Amino acid sequence: MSLRVLGVDPGSIKSGYGLIEESQNKLRTLDFGAIYTHPKDPFPVRLLEIKRGLEQVITCYQPEVMALEDVFFAKNVKSALKLGHARGVILVTAVEAGLEVVEYAPLEIKQAVVGYGRADKHQIQQMVKILLGLRDIPQPEDAADALAVAICHIHSAEMKRRLMNL
Amino acid sequence: MSLRVLGVDPGSIKSGYGLIEESQNKLRTLDFGAIYTHPKDPFPVRLLEIKRGLEQVITCYQPEVMALEDVFFAKNVKSALKLGHARGVILVTAVEAGLEVVEYAPLEIKQAVVGYGRADKHQIQQMVKILLGLRDIPQPEDAADALAVAICHIHSAEMKRRLMNL
Repeated sequence: MSLRVLGVDPGSIKSGYGLIEESQNKLRTLDFGAIYTHPKDPFPVRLLEIKRGLEQVITCYQPEVMALEDVFFAKNVKSALKLGHARGVILVTAVEAGLEVVEYAPLEIKQAVVGYGRADKHQIQQMVKILLGLRDIPQPEDAADALAVAICHIHSAEMKRRLMNL
Repeated sequence: MSLRVLGVDPGSIKSGYGLIEESQNKLRTLDFGAIYTHPKDPFPVRLLEIKRGLEQVITCYQPEVMALEDVFFAKNVKSALKLGHARGVILVTAVEAGLEVVEYAPLEIKQAVVGYGRADKHQIQQMVKILLGLRDIPQPEDAADALAVAICHIHSAEMKRRLMNL
């Protein structure tokens, strides 16, 4: 039995994504990258670019689950509004495509990837590289963050399976 | 020549909408109401309920334009994030359906509907009732607000036409 997880790190300018397949306790990286929007396009059109980009990724890899970081904070109301727009589009696109959507707190992601809730950004990216057996830290950074959430979901799904089998 | 405008007042719990047709300087109210989401559904599913609800309205009335209030403020980051999600879904649904999306500042809406930038909520709703020749103030309030933005767009489009013809 295998599980395909799409991790996403939403943003209105660019959204990172990462696809991981877990099969027989092995992780395989299928793809990672970012969905960019054209800065000169009107904001509503950029939201459609995010939707189309994500739809393409989903159609191509057919993941069962989309995992993303839960967000409660933002620099200020203005950036919360912007991020909210992009995130809303990403969530609705995944649900519309039939994916299960799972959100994880930043602490859970750090603990699942690094084993330490206070890990910094660089430590997470290093561990993503190591856990996935990649040569370098995935670029752009948003893609590494997206892969981290995907790893977190796989670890947490595995943990649940083990607990069920106790 | 006629113009069909869909006004929307986005919210994650309920989103007001109002449809107005302008033809030969007369306004006709086609429909108004609200798209409700099920409070017990997970948030991503509620976003899809908003999308489906708006798609239904668009398919039914085929408006050319969606008008909504521009938002820069919110009570706090948390409510900005929630509103942002709903608003992002509404914007992307409209653009995907081929509608032109136009945003107006609260001041513009008040001036267009009441002729007075400091008008309060009740004055706006009263004027919506009068301008559209309705018996009562449209309910729920979000629908009245949505109709106000639609009226604002029609007035502003008319103004532009007049200026072009000078």
